Amino acid sequence: MPHRTFTTNKTAIIGTGLLGGSLGLAIRGICPDAEVVGVNRSEAGRRAARRAGCVTATSSSIATAVAGADLVVLATPVGAFETIFHSLVGKLAEGALVTDVGSTKRDVVRLGESILGRGGPFVGSHPMAGKERKGAAFAEADLLVGAPCLLTPTSHTPKALLNRAKTLWQAVGMRPMEFPPAEHDRVVARISHLPHIISSLLMALPRDEDLPASSSGFRDMTRLAGGDPEMWRDIMLTNRDAILNTIDRFDTQLAKLRTVIEAGQPKPIEQFLAKEQQRRRTLPDG
Amino acid sequence: MPHRTFTTNKTAIIGTGLLGGSLGLAIRGICPDAEVVGVNRSEAGRRAARRAGCVTATSSSIATAVAGADLVVLATPVGAFETIFHSLVGKLAEGALVTDVGSTKRDVVRLGESILGRGGPFVGSHPMAGKERKGAAFAEADLLVGAPCLLTPTSHTPKALLNRAKTLWQAVGMRPMEFPPAEHDRVVARISHLPHIISSLLMALPRDEDLPASSSGFRDMTRLAGGDPEMWRDIMLTNRDAILNTIDRFDTQLAKLRTVIEAGQPKPIEQFLAKEQQRRRTLPDG
Repeated sequence: MPHRTFTTNKTAIIGTGLLGGSLGLAIRGICPDAEVVGVNRSEAGRRAARRAGCVTATSSSIATAVAGADLVVLATPVGAFETIFHSLVGKLAEGALVTDVGSTKRDVVRLGESILGRGGPFVGSHPMAGKERKGAAFAEADLLVGAPCLLTPTSHTPKALLNRAKTLWQAVGMRPMEFPPAEHDRVVARISHLPHIISSLLMALPRDEDLPASSSGFRDMTRLAGGDPEMWRDIMLTNRDAILNTIDRFDTQLAKLRTVIEAGQPKPIEQFLAKEQQRRRTLPDG
Repeated sequence: MPHRTFTTNKTAIIGTGLLGGSLGLAIRGICPDAEVVGVNRSEAGRRAARRAGCVTATSSSIATAVAGADLVVLATPVGAFETIFHSLVGKLAEGALVTDVGSTKRDVVRLGESILGRGGPFVGSHPMAGKERKGAAFAEADLLVGAPCLLTPTSHTPKALLNRAKTLWQAVGMRPMEFPPAEHDRVVARISHLPHIISSLLMALPRDEDLPASSSGFRDMTRLAGGDPEMWRDIMLTNRDAILNTIDRFDTQLAKLRTVIEAGQPKPIEQFLAKEQQRRRTLPDG
């Protein structure tokens, strides 16, 4: 079991957008005396994080922010991670935990271990939380509460480091689960990445003039399409193989269903719908 | 413009499930002195409608229920409509409006006009409202408020009859829109029927043991999969052509996107996502 209580004297959050900002708010809530330093390249981004109370201070320098920090969280788009890992080399405090909030893990964990070292200090994390607004101004500590956080330790990850990461996510209200990095990417392709792609594709189907005829079902099915195009572009590029594989699985199932609809076969249509209706009932509540 | 106020002395609702029951509640709210008779084949269904206050009386006989009624609403699964239309012949009061809540319209309007007559009394309606629970026990007048109601008049439909139907749906809080029947079926295949199919297909992708890793995005995208399998089976059978056509359009778009993901092309991926993000913002609010 991880420690029940998470503590930090100084945390550095690199990237103070919606997720980084929300985590900052949550950490400030549980560790009110901690320094929480937010790193952002833009002055506007730093100001927004300070105004929203997500951090106790901001910096444009990763080296300054991580000096003496016992926790470092990468919360930029995944495409920036390699550069950030390199800039952490030789700058981290002894025993610091480095983790992230990125949506893909195979490449990220490979980079984290090869640049920062096997056996620590990096443990991959993927908090399954978000909303269709960007930036610290929309951050809220409750964004994380009740959602799963997928951790991706490897055979090199020290138990104590993994436990500290688990304790962090539990302390901010999340449900930690563990997956090997490649398995994580396959799972999230099915439960997150393909659903996002599909949401945008459904949005593309109706003509503009027919959109006012749509109702709550269409609104739900296209909510994800409102997400940040740059972030999702990065996800599609970094989790390409698992996403392509999932598209093909999905397409095979769609073709099967198309066949029974075309043949006008009531039984297999109803059986398919009834089976997934039952499975839907086993989903964890919101 | 339709009349501003809808009135009825006696309404017959044939089928007292979620939608029929909700409409009954709404009509009782705006016409508190009206008789609202619910027809259901099963005693349990009639009892549920009475208990929920959806109707003032129930009957197992369509002839009894529609005698003297100025409004008759078909609210059973679409598959039962042909039989019901036949049982209305010679039983309707002079000037009565007959409408429905069915999700497909080309076949329904053809049957309604050929069995009950061109030039009235039938006008097709499709209130775009629902939820993932069946039966009068879950009925609520507010289910209809703010949602579109798609009306499908033909060149034979008298203006006065169409106006009365519009007034009804406006009076219960809906936004009436008009489509020719076949066009309605094409539009709802895109904004409702394919999204439902996709929701069930997405539910089928993850393994059972991976479902706890899912979060709010997956929950939204699979909400429709929780819908009634029999009702949706009927919809897929009666709107088959438009649904097959929509599946093919969707599949073409999916294949295009797959190609740019496979090629690792950031620009077209981002452009596609950004375009649909913008269109999503034009959707009417919930």
